[in-house]
Amino acid sequence: MSEPTVVQRLAEVAVEIRDKGLPAELRADVARRVLDVLGNSLAATPLEPSRTVQALAAEWGGSAQATAIGAAALGAGRRYPAATAALVNGTLAHALDFDDTHLPSVLHPSSNVVPAALAAAEAVGASGPALLDAAGFGIEVCVRLGMAGYDAELGNSVFFDRGLHATAICGAVGAAVAAAMLHGLDAAEIASAAGIACSMGAGVLEANRTGGTVKRVHCGWAAHCGTAAADLARHGLTGPPTVIEGRFGFLQAYCGDRADPYVVVDGLGVRWELPGIFFKPYPCNHFTHAGIDAALRLRARGLDPDSVEDIELGAAGPVLRTIAQPAEQKARPATGYAAAFSGPYTVAAALLGGGGLGVFHEDFTDEMARDERRRALAAKVRCVEDPLCSRIFPNQFPAVLRVLTRSGETFEERLDVNRGGPQDPLTDAELATKFRLNAVRSVSEERAGEIAACALGLQSLADVGELTDLLP
Amino acid sequence: MSEPTVVQRLAEVAVEIRDKGLPAELRADVARRVLDVLGNSLAATPLEPSRTVQALAAEWGGSAQATAIGAAALGAGRRYPAATAALVNGTLAHALDFDDTHLPSVLHPSSNVVPAALAAAEAVGASGPALLDAAGFGIEVCVRLGMAGYDAELGNSVFFDRGLHATAICGAVGAAVAAAMLHGLDAAEIASAAGIACSMGAGVLEANRTGGTVKRVHCGWAAHCGTAAADLARHGLTGPPTVIEGRFGFLQAYCGDRADPYVVVDGLGVRWELPGIFFKPYPCNHFTHAGIDAALRLRARGLDPDSVEDIELGAAGPVLRTIAQPAEQKARPATGYAAAFSGPYTVAAALLGGGGLGVFHEDFTDEMARDERRRALAAKVRCVEDPLCSRIFPNQFPAVLRVLTRSGETFEERLDVNRGGPQDPLTDAELATKFRLNAVRSVSEERAGEIAACALGLQSLADVGELTDLLP
Repeated sequence: MSEPTVVQRLAEVAVEIRDKGLPAELRADVARRVLDVLGNSLAATPLEPSRTVQALAAEWGGSAQATAIGAAALGAGRRYPAATAALVNGTLAHALDFDDTHLPSVLHPSSNVVPAALAAAEAVGASGPALLDAAGFGIEVCVRLGMAGYDAELGNSVFFDRGLHATAICGAVGAAVAAAMLHGLDAAEIASAAGIACSMGAGVLEANRTGGTVKRVHCGWAAHCGTAAADLARHGLTGPPTVIEGRFGFLQAYCGDRADPYVVVDGLGVRWELPGIFFKPYPCNHFTHAGIDAALRLRARGLDPDSVEDIELGAAGPVLRTIAQPAEQKARPATGYAAAFSGPYTVAAALLGGGGLGVFHEDFTDEMARDERRRALAAKVRCVEDPLCSRIFPNQFPAVLRVLTRSGETFEERLDVNRGGPQDPLTDAELATKFRLNAVRSVSEERAGEIAACALGLQSLADVGELTDLLP
Repeated sequence: MSEPTVVQRLAEVAVEIRDKGLPAELRADVARRVLDVLGNSLAATPLEPSRTVQALAAEWGGSAQATAIGAAALGAGRRYPAATAALVNGTLAHALDFDDTHLPSVLHPSSNVVPAALAAAEAVGASGPALLDAAGFGIEVCVRLGMAGYDAELGNSVFFDRGLHATAICGAVGAAVAAAMLHGLDAAEIASAAGIACSMGAGVLEANRTGGTVKRVHCGWAAHCGTAAADLARHGLTGPPTVIEGRFGFLQAYCGDRADPYVVVDGLGVRWELPGIFFKPYPCNHFTHAGIDAALRLRARGLDPDSVEDIELGAAGPVLRTIAQPAEQKARPATGYAAAFSGPYTVAAALLGGGGLGVFHEDFTDEMARDERRRALAAKVRCVEDPLCSRIFPNQFPAVLRVLTRSGETFEERLDVNRGGPQDPLTDAELATKFRLNAVRSVSEERAGEIAACALGLQSLADVGELTDLLP
């Protein structure tokens, strides 16, 4: 027999995992990701883009397969076709840019995969462990596709370099695999679901540069694509066997010749990227985090923000387009969302504000983004490429902060690793705090506690419906 | 005031066209395209991928906004959310690869745009002229995006060269613009709909190489994306102003530096690509058509297929991946659909079969694809790059056929232009024949006549519902 293709191998491993189950420590990791996704989603529920997708779900209507978070509050039903619920919940999961990030693929896997898996699990009445196994493997597939597009020579993800949102493009495929596993599809059908999703996921990053709220639905659309791909495979549609590695396939299309299809399947099911994916401590673009941490350290050292004359924020070259350009817009972000993508603003926020684990949602309101004290401090932040940071990127998103005060003192803090990853993990208590502070933005303290207990207890939950019934 | 961005200009022109209406000759052209799309869709209704999307629509259910062709025959409802109807009807429109093609962008615009426009028009109760104006402009936007990705130096569309299905990627944007126009969105909202769709359209071409039915839903998914993008814009989501031309925008993402954003807006609304888009006479991949025409000419000259020793099919280099590789699969297509993408098979079919306008659906059944006489003749066809053809491609898809008989006679036919385009158009009678032969595969002769009269009379139709009510 000939060697399996990439999607064939991927589908074989998916079936093995469904049959045998993931090891308990990986299931526990996925449960933490489900908790984190739900917290981020509950925090995002009141946002306008969330209301947009909820209103659209209510307009479309349809079969009551899965819960769309927050839709019931509009006076519409709470359950919709799984593909529609995935659109709503994926949008909520990513809307605050508070979702987990895989390095070096620079993508947010859980916001695509978990909402799709949760919708499929609810639709079929799956158990907690089945959800965890499917979501965990879907996340793994998603990040490995992203890694396959990493170009060592370029020192960057080709997706990212081209302006393609790998999160959504690879996320659709991971979401499809997870949904297909939960629907009990066989290996050939799982391969087809992945192959179909390869023709569905999409997303360009221009909104990070010049605005517009579309990026907030990217993960929702990816979850929608993945769910629909699994639905189509279940109804008989098929994908090409060589869809990942072929000359007209996924990796060639998005990343060209330098992509490495082998990365997707090398050690798949044995060696896991999953537990190393970074949880975010701060509700803003991940590239800004090390700068925030540096600022928080300077603050702890007693730096008086009013004494600042000049701040130099050094970061890796490839991130400057996202957090530093155009400079005038980054210093004076028009909205709270734009502020979350600004190196200068986030440094100012860390020096002046700081709820939650360091900076929090209250630092990213539209009002706060226009706060003159913050803008004045942000205007003092010059962003430059730092060669040491560039060398480490994208295995970490490092930063160095150099402050000159009016009295001529200088301070420097350099961060080579990010909080929330394997080298500086968030503790269970920090993750619980993050969830609680997120969740109480749309549910009571008591309900937040119930959801947390249920999510962290997914390993022994008989029916995922017990969790989704707790959602607003 | 600063120059408008590409989507801003596009939206300005959309509003102008909606206000003033297209000239009558352009409306007449669009009506012919609506007729052609409906005929192709009716012919595709019994196919398995059609049944797949119809069954999925029935499973999803939802608001009765627009007719999904053929869904009622499954015992389900006939009307669904416009986004779902667009998925079904776009799939049907493209499933037989019988849909119109724009050169040199090498894409099928009407199969994406017309289903989305028709669904939106039915949902809002639009008039025939409003449908024609929106669909016509959506088609124009779609093909201009494709043209912007044409690389003269490469001699090919960058989309196509990368294995990206420009049809679906650009089609989603055209569909979004058409749907947004019909929903009465203002210029800023139309620009947002286009910008949102830039993060939605997708499609890789690998299925053309190694099989799978996913490509059949590409236009359905694009129509779904476009409809959803317009829906999201209507509910308040926004896109970035520089989404087409920006460093992280659509053209950079899919085509890199050599794309020319200016092509999208240059003379937009004044100079039209629309009427030059090729109608297909044969239900198979467009790259095979000139070879079919050459074979039909040889047949008319009296060539006896049983006398053939060897056939050389010369074509443009870039098309060989689609119609000639892998050679063993192209000589022995596994399915009728695969046969439609085979240079060798289509030449054999033209020499041996031939209904409709030359070859027709009966030449592309699974049974006929496995017919030993056809396979034996197809096995004698060698595909080679012809430099003259390569020079003309992709302004036309030319071919040259050289036949050697067992008795040592040689025949040659060279076709530089394709039937169905401006230099060799299909007559009204031929287009009517194509429609009728397509339509009677799922409706009566009488109903086919009513649909044709209604579609060709769209210029004076008060309510598009009169047309959609006639559909099965």
